[in-house]
Amino acid sequence: MKKVVTFGELMLRLAPEGCLRFVQAEKFQATMGGAEANVAVDLACLGAEAAFVTKLPAHEIGQLAVNSLRRFGVDTSNILRGGARVGVYYCEKGASQRASKVIYDRAGSAIAEARPGEFDWDAIFGEAGWFHFTGITPALSEGCAALCLEACQAARRHGVPVSCDLNYRRNLWPREQAGRVMAGLMPYVRLLVANEEDAADVFGIHATGSDIEGGKLSREGYADVARQLSERFGIPEIAVTLRQSISASDNIWAGMLYSNQKCYFSKEYPVHIVDRVGGGDSFGAGLIFATLEGQSPAGRLEFAVAASCLKHSIEGDFNVISAGEARRLAGGSGSGRVQR
Amino acid sequence: MKKVVTFGELMLRLAPEGCLRFVQAEKFQATMGGAEANVAVDLACLGAEAAFVTKLPAHEIGQLAVNSLRRFGVDTSNILRGGARVGVYYCEKGASQRASKVIYDRAGSAIAEARPGEFDWDAIFGEAGWFHFTGITPALSEGCAALCLEACQAARRHGVPVSCDLNYRRNLWPREQAGRVMAGLMPYVRLLVANEEDAADVFGIHATGSDIEGGKLSREGYADVARQLSERFGIPEIAVTLRQSISASDNIWAGMLYSNQKCYFSKEYPVHIVDRVGGGDSFGAGLIFATLEGQSPAGRLEFAVAASCLKHSIEGDFNVISAGEARRLAGGSGSGRVQR
Amino acid sequence: MKKVVTFGELMLRLAPEGCLRFVQAEKFQATMGGAEANVAVDLACLGAEAAFVTKLPAHEIGQLAVNSLRRFGVDTSNILRGGARVGVYYCEKGASQRASKVIYDRAGSAIAEARPGEFDWDAIFGEAGWFHFTGITPALSEGCAALCLEACQAARRHGVPVSCDLNYRRNLWPREQAGRVMAGLMPYVRLLVANEEDAADVFGIHATGSDIEGGKLSREGYADVARQLSERFGIPEIAVTLRQSISASDNIWAGMLYSNQKCYFSKEYPVHIVDRVGGGDSFGAGLIFATLEGQSPAGRLEFAVAASCLKHSIEGDFNVISAGEARRLAGGSGSGRVQR
Amino acid sequence: MKKVVTFGELMLRLAPEGCLRFVQAEKFQATMGGAEANVAVDLACLGAEAAFVTKLPAHEIGQLAVNSLRRFGVDTSNILRGGARVGVYYCEKGASQRASKVIYDRAGSAIAEARPGEFDWDAIFGEAGWFHFTGITPALSEGCAALCLEACQAARRHGVPVSCDLNYRRNLWPREQAGRVMAGLMPYVRLLVANEEDAADVFGIHATGSDIEGGKLSREGYADVARQLSERFGIPEIAVTLRQSISASDNIWAGMLYSNQKCYFSKEYPVHIVDRVGGGDSFGAGLIFATLEGQSPAGRLEFAVAASCLKHSIEGDFNVISAGEARRLAGGSGSGRVQR
Amino acid sequence: MKKVVTFGELMLRLAPEGCLRFVQAEKFQATMGGAEANVAVDLACLGAEAAFVTKLPAHEIGQLAVNSLRRFGVDTSNILRGGARVGVYYCEKGASQRASKVIYDRAGSAIAEARPGEFDWDAIFGEAGWFHFTGITPALSEGCAALCLEACQAARRHGVPVSCDLNYRRNLWPREQAGRVMAGLMPYVRLLVANEEDAADVFGIHATGSDIEGGKLSREGYADVARQLSERFGIPEIAVTLRQSISASDNIWAGMLYSNQKCYFSKEYPVHIVDRVGGGDSFGAGLIFATLEGQSPAGRLEFAVAASCLKHSIEGDFNVISAGEARRLAGGSGSGRVQR
Amino acid sequence: MKKVVTFGELMLRLAPEGCLRFVQAEKFQATMGGAEANVAVDLACLGAEAAFVTKLPAHEIGQLAVNSLRRFGVDTSNILRGGARVGVYYCEKGASQRASKVIYDRAGSAIAEARPGEFDWDAIFGEAGWFHFTGITPALSEGCAALCLEACQAARRHGVPVSCDLNYRRNLWPREQAGRVMAGLMPYVRLLVANEEDAADVFGIHATGSDIEGGKLSREGYADVARQLSERFGIPEIAVTLRQSISASDNIWAGMLYSNQKCYFSKEYPVHIVDRVGGGDSFGAGLIFATLEGQSPAGRLEFAVAASCLKHSIEGDFNVISAGEARRLAGGSGSGRVQR
Repeated sequence: MKKVVTFGELMLRLAPEGCLRFVQAEKFQATMGGAEANVAVDLACLGAEAAFVTKLPAHEIGQLAVNSLRRFGVDTSNILRGGARVGVYYCEKGASQRASKVIYDRAGSAIAEARPGEFDWDAIFGEAGWFHFTGITPALSEGCAALCLEACQAARRHGVPVSCDLNYRRNLWPREQAGRVMAGLMPYVRLLVANEEDAADVFGIHATGSDIEGGKLSREGYADVARQLSERFGIPEIAVTLRQSISASDNIWAGMLYSNQKCYFSKEYPVHIVDRVGGGDSFGAGLIFATLEGQSPAGRLEFAVAASCLKHSIEGDFNVISAGEARRLAGGSGSGRVQR
Repeated sequence: MKKVVTFGELMLRLAPEGCLRFVQAEKFQATMGGAEANVAVDLACLGAEAAFVTKLPAHEIGQLAVNSLRRFGVDTSNILRGGARVGVYYCEKGASQRASKVIYDRAGSAIAEARPGEFDWDAIFGEAGWFHFTGITPALSEGCAALCLEACQAARRHGVPVSCDLNYRRNLWPREQAGRVMAGLMPYVRLLVANEEDAADVFGIHATGSDIEGGKLSREGYADVARQLSERFGIPEIAVTLRQSISASDNIWAGMLYSNQKCYFSKEYPVHIVDRVGGGDSFGAGLIFATLEGQSPAGRLEFAVAASCLKHSIEGDFNVISAGEARRLAGGSGSGRVQR
Repeated sequence: MKKVVTFGELMLRLAPEGCLRFVQAEKFQATMGGAEANVAVDLACLGAEAAFVTKLPAHEIGQLAVNSLRRFGVDTSNILRGGARVGVYYCEKGASQRASKVIYDRAGSAIAEARPGEFDWDAIFGEAGWFHFTGITPALSEGCAALCLEACQAARRHGVPVSCDLNYRRNLWPREQAGRVMAGLMPYVRLLVANEEDAADVFGIHATGSDIEGGKLSREGYADVARQLSERFGIPEIAVTLRQSISASDNIWAGMLYSNQKCYFSKEYPVHIVDRVGGGDSFGAGLIFATLEGQSPAGRLEFAVAASCLKHSIEGDFNVISAGEARRLAGGSGSGRVQR
Repeated sequence: MKKVVTFGELMLRLAPEGCLRFVQAEKFQATMGGAEANVAVDLACLGAEAAFVTKLPAHEIGQLAVNSLRRFGVDTSNILRGGARVGVYYCEKGASQRASKVIYDRAGSAIAEARPGEFDWDAIFGEAGWFHFTGITPALSEGCAALCLEACQAARRHGVPVSCDLNYRRNLWPREQAGRVMAGLMPYVRLLVANEEDAADVFGIHATGSDIEGGKLSREGYADVARQLSERFGIPEIAVTLRQSISASDNIWAGMLYSNQKCYFSKEYPVHIVDRVGGGDSFGAGLIFATLEGQSPAGRLEFAVAASCLKHSIEGDFNVISAGEARRLAGGSGSGRVQR
Repeated sequence: MKKVVTFGELMLRLAPEGCLRFVQAEKFQATMGGAEANVAVDLACLGAEAAFVTKLPAHEIGQLAVNSLRRFGVDTSNILRGGARVGVYYCEKGASQRASKVIYDRAGSAIAEARPGEFDWDAIFGEAGWFHFTGITPALSEGCAALCLEACQAARRHGVPVSCDLNYRRNLWPREQAGRVMAGLMPYVRLLVANEEDAADVFGIHATGSDIEGGKLSREGYADVARQLSERFGIPEIAVTLRQSISASDNIWAGMLYSNQKCYFSKEYPVHIVDRVGGGDSFGAGLIFATLEGQSPAGRLEFAVAASCLKHSIEGDFNVISAGEARRLAGGSGSGRVQR
Repeated sequence: MKKVVTFGELMLRLAPEGCLRFVQAEKFQATMGGAEANVAVDLACLGAEAAFVTKLPAHEIGQLAVNSLRRFGVDTSNILRGGARVGVYYCEKGASQRASKVIYDRAGSAIAEARPGEFDWDAIFGEAGWFHFTGITPALSEGCAALCLEACQAARRHGVPVSCDLNYRRNLWPREQAGRVMAGLMPYVRLLVANEEDAADVFGIHATGSDIEGGKLSREGYADVARQLSERFGIPEIAVTLRQSISASDNIWAGMLYSNQKCYFSKEYPVHIVDRVGGGDSFGAGLIFATLEGQSPAGRLEFAVAASCLKHSIEGDFNVISAGEARRLAGGSGSGRVQR
């Protein structure tokens, strides 16, 4: 399996212990996370080769960030060292009717301050077999938007397919800016992960009225949004995660894949949530992994949904599961009997 | 919003970590709690001014108790320092069919040994806009019963409305003594929180037979008990929390408010429990807060039930939520989606 | 109540904190466990006299193991000290669709290396009123198989009734060896705990085809398997735990007792799982305890199922509950209301 | 070696983690301790048979206390269960110039409320070979003073030698009351542990002026105090711990034994302190152990000082060391090289 | 005692547990600290009234910061809420030859972005009796430099004496800028805390050559530097902390006060370090406290040195000691005997 | 700098928290360690390329071990996966007169069961610039002894210099076997780390009588032992660590290098110990690093002693320091002032 390269920001995730609220915290669990780094770690755990590209300060907190990836086997040799700070995000775990809360403190991070020309994309993509980024990276700064374009162009030069998770973050940039920048990147994308909210926020794409049932999209509605995305930008495949939020403790999880003008819907999993942050990223990682394995569209979707279902039972941003675990769940073994 | 004064005992709460049983404990989480102190902290977090009145030893454990309130903005300037000990309660968290367990070790605490005349009630109520106490405080000792009466009389002198949570504790005093003492305090009360068990234990008030369905009160039954309480003591408003215990992990939570001879029933919330201690106190705090805000009876009830619903997702006795969080839940947002 | 003796291995249980996976672990909770030791501790907590027989190294880790039993009142005076190592098992707690995982590292433990003749069974059974072992102990080594036979023979000499939990472990021995060895021990057994998988794996006993519904045994199927076990080996009583695994977080728990050619089925409990390891052992302990108390077959079963239902809410291998708690749950009090 | 019986109070010790101050505490380490219970555990760890006699509540915190002793092999079969509370002491660890701090909350404990006649001393001393108590027990209450006398008389009836640690606690009783009560108990004592402050506080015994150097007693001063104690009460042996407090982190530790009108002084150990609470108790335990082993006076002293030197390196009240470890240190091996 | 106002930044302090290095961290202790906030908390613990002025984000991490001060009784009513981020500093505790390490991540904090005119200094100084700031605050940004000048001018208008700790931080600003800005603030200062390095870095003031012994200043050297500072800016009092760093674990601590043209040198304390961060701040707080108490120059110095000596034994930035503890140490009781 | 290859066992290190004894442990810190793996990690942290060769089980505990090395940048691509178990060692931290204690449970580990021919040494040494092993690896099993010989022969084939730490472990093999096997490996060694005890135990080499002062070797004695080792086996360089154990908390640390028939002695460092396990390994790593850097003999020694001095202040087996930190200490900066 060829190496997957992802590019973005790796942040220090500071989370109070257990279900404590921020104002009750005396300690923070210190792990690392960020959409594209999560995908890299998830892929490495599944068994793929994965490399993460970013910029991190030369000091020890930067080193802590690098080590968090190396530990799970991610290639960090293309991470630049320099700049002032490691971005931080504070993460409070919700429960029952109380929602989880995330406070970002990422402005001025080393990668947000990085400038075009700092990365040697040709060297990076020389051995690569896939490239993945999300809509968060170009939102970090104009420099990052330009770096994403650089990366996509280099990927195309090297014949490396590109996937993107649309991932709109309203506190990073306004809708019209997001729409303009992402529209410039879409022509490079072969597989787009996007839900209906992202499609509406970034590209103003909505399902037609008849596709809405009780305020939620119907199956046809999701298909319609995917079709519009695919057609507007010529993207062959659109994947969507389908989350029903019953409470902060319980969700129903599923996915859809629009491929070759056909729509596939996965099984639905009722999940009792341990940590849902990184759930979407693990879906993307699962999809890339199964794609590189050469599975069928339906098989790829079921693998990705099973992998990301398991993510909800795991602490932290990273989906530290094996491909076998995802396969077993996709194959039907979700009763959770003890494995000895 | 005028300042709310509460009066009672603040205890050291010693809880084994997570779901450990007492006999498995190697460490105790050391937080503070007590019905009236909880109400004061809950109000301060919601955004009200709140002051707590008690007596605590001059030593460092007494200071730890004072600090636990100051941290959340409660005015502690009327706490007397002296006496021998901080009361303790041991709290073991239940799960599934295993009930939570509380062992009290509060005899001889500084406040239980306090005597009438020690507090300067006129100074305390000079700036106050509300007074709250519960049936636990007069149960602590004869001195505390006399102090409650002193406080109620002073509140009346200053035109400060009084609320009370009936809160019968069988290991503190026998039923007839509770009935006699509480009957002497009821004339001062404008808003009484009481459930049907408390009403029966303390005042011998029962719903009429036809109001019982399958061993539980019907809606009419609750209304009937509230009406009797209101009429016997001339209390304008009676509030009741309605808890259905499915297991130690799952409850259904709702409330009723009898106001101006009308009964209001709130929405029901299925709650997955993190910590249910202090749930009733947070209902009282929510009701007082919404009352001081001048909301309608139905609005006050929904606010109080939403606030106390959220309490069940929070560790410790204190309901560290903002008024906005309670309003959002009362307004319908209970799906627990991540807030970024 | 006469003393219950159990014989087997006590291992160090190393479990990552909370729901962390093995590869995320920085600390291990260090408790002790093992099927027969669990039964001894469970019995001691219920209020019986219990003694555990094994061999443990003379060093401090062996002492830590001894102390873990003494702490709960188990008689450890017949534990031999010597040999090289304390067996270890690593235990990762599952959640939702992610199963719990156990990795054994028990080869070469002091008890696995013990030889016939090392234990003074006549002294051990002199004061005993019951003997219990499981199918794990004879699987540890040929020496342990011989020791089990020694123990059974001595128990018979002293008129001590014997119970056994069939407990087949595939990574310890192959089916035919298990079948041969266990068949040699069954003649001593008066009460056998076994589920349908164990019966099939060890003795090739299956329910007749018509007893299977949707891939699971029907009530009649369980009865049929119990009858066959009872008749083939002349065992008066067969008990079965009935676990429905909904997920790693939620199970439905019940039991069956075949006694005197009659089948008793217990109530079913939906359990929200804190820790299910040791659940089966706590059922055995409950059954032995209620048997020694002289309860009826139905009462013994309900007591055992209630006790083991509570085990699922308790961390670690040991079911640290009192007999009163099991009786109250069997009697109907499972709503988990706070006990003050 | 015959069984040593000790009698006194076992308290819950609540200590902030590490070097945190009380007002910084969020958790308390929950261990157990008390002068006479410490001696029992220390003896059991050294390899003696030891039994502890007290009264503890029937609830789970009482059980936690019982278990803390059983864990280390102390016989708890003579502990009465009943009464209201487990005494508590809060313990803050000092460092450098900041002294450790202890806040007692022990009034009203089950043992303080116990009454003469509750214990069956004849059964207790039937198998005993030694009895030990300290000056803390009779200070708890008049009932406890009477119980100490009962115990001493019973010990004499059974020919059991008695040791006592004078241990004056000013916050438990005034000097004159201590002097009167302790004088009544001294006639039963064969071995008294006492330092010069205790001798002065309780019995008004001071060294003669010339024995003081720079405000501290000289060797002759200590000998003089011991001689006076021995002669006034006819006690054959007086032992003294000699602590030089350099800071809360560093002490110099040694001891003296006055036996048969001769004075023995031990080696001096510079100790880097981990936890000094229980240091004096471990000296007493060492002395009793070595006495029962039949060592020479000098050997007994060196053993006791080495054992208690090691206590200063161990967390908690209990000196969990083996006799071999104390012997090796007394024999000269204090360089702390890793033992593999 | 009149209220002391301090002004500066309050940061989140993230420290690995115990002696772990940054790259070993899995959790961070989350406390708060900052030079002027430390002084406010230290004063509140000593028993003074203290208020802290800063700007903190409206979000929950900002609230956590506010609460950290309220907990110890600091008046936070003049803290502005707004801005983007709470500054962070990472703190790794050294040991032996390994130095402690601090990594700042404070750029862009709410207070650094604050602008002149945002604070109502006249209201703030209306009730104040002292004002304290350090050279760190004007170094944060031009806005903060202007705010410091605003504050000093307002203090003068209200007749409030001003103290300053020179505290040069090379990574915040260059020497010449520091010199220029601080020179503009010195005319308002009545008591300056500064060591010889700060004096040289900021103002180019050096001791004359003959005052240096073995690379370190002699007593005369310190006096000479103090005299120069006093004379150049007309500051009546100069205080200096004298730290000899033996290793990261052991220091010798003392202080000097130049007052009224006379030099006072304190006792020297050998300190075994628990946490030395905030040591200098606690010296300043001690000096202010003793000044407000009206002690003599020598008494003020000894009090401040004793208070800050104790700080080295306390975790975190805050010196949570009472005035009594500092007085007892200054009075000679540093042997660290247990206080019961 | 060319890659350093080390070969040996990586064990799970289980250590009670802080200074707790084994019998007090409720949790174990779970890190990894082993003499040769430590050297690899230490080198990677210093900035060298390092690869570790071993065999580890395919299960998750094996993966945890692999990850512990990857985290710090060690190349693990030559680690074989298979076999049954990860070796374990239990590690109790001593303090003051109480020695640290290590209990090994490593028999039957995957690497001990490995057989000659399993590793592709030619591939491993193709890119290598140095090979290091210790006397522990050949002691694990005959297979490991043969593997060490294979590795040494392959290293010679590839012109890779070899270093060895003699490291005699008496519980792994008897002296004569060690002497025979190690003598067969010495001809491949260019740099031997050995202390006088190892030299005596393994090779029967002693200093001549006149070189002993007060039971310890004199400088001449160390030189004499080094000379004998060098001459008997033709090893150009012999390095010795010189540890004076004052207590488990305080040591004096230094080293000697015999090179080219000349003896170099380093500075002495008084160390306050955080964790001394791995101290010797960090000396070896420092020496290899400085050798590859091409420093002078005296410079190499000072660097290695400074690096290993710092190790004593760091938790765990691994010396997570940078080369700059070692250089600064060697250059004189050991006063431990805070680095900001």
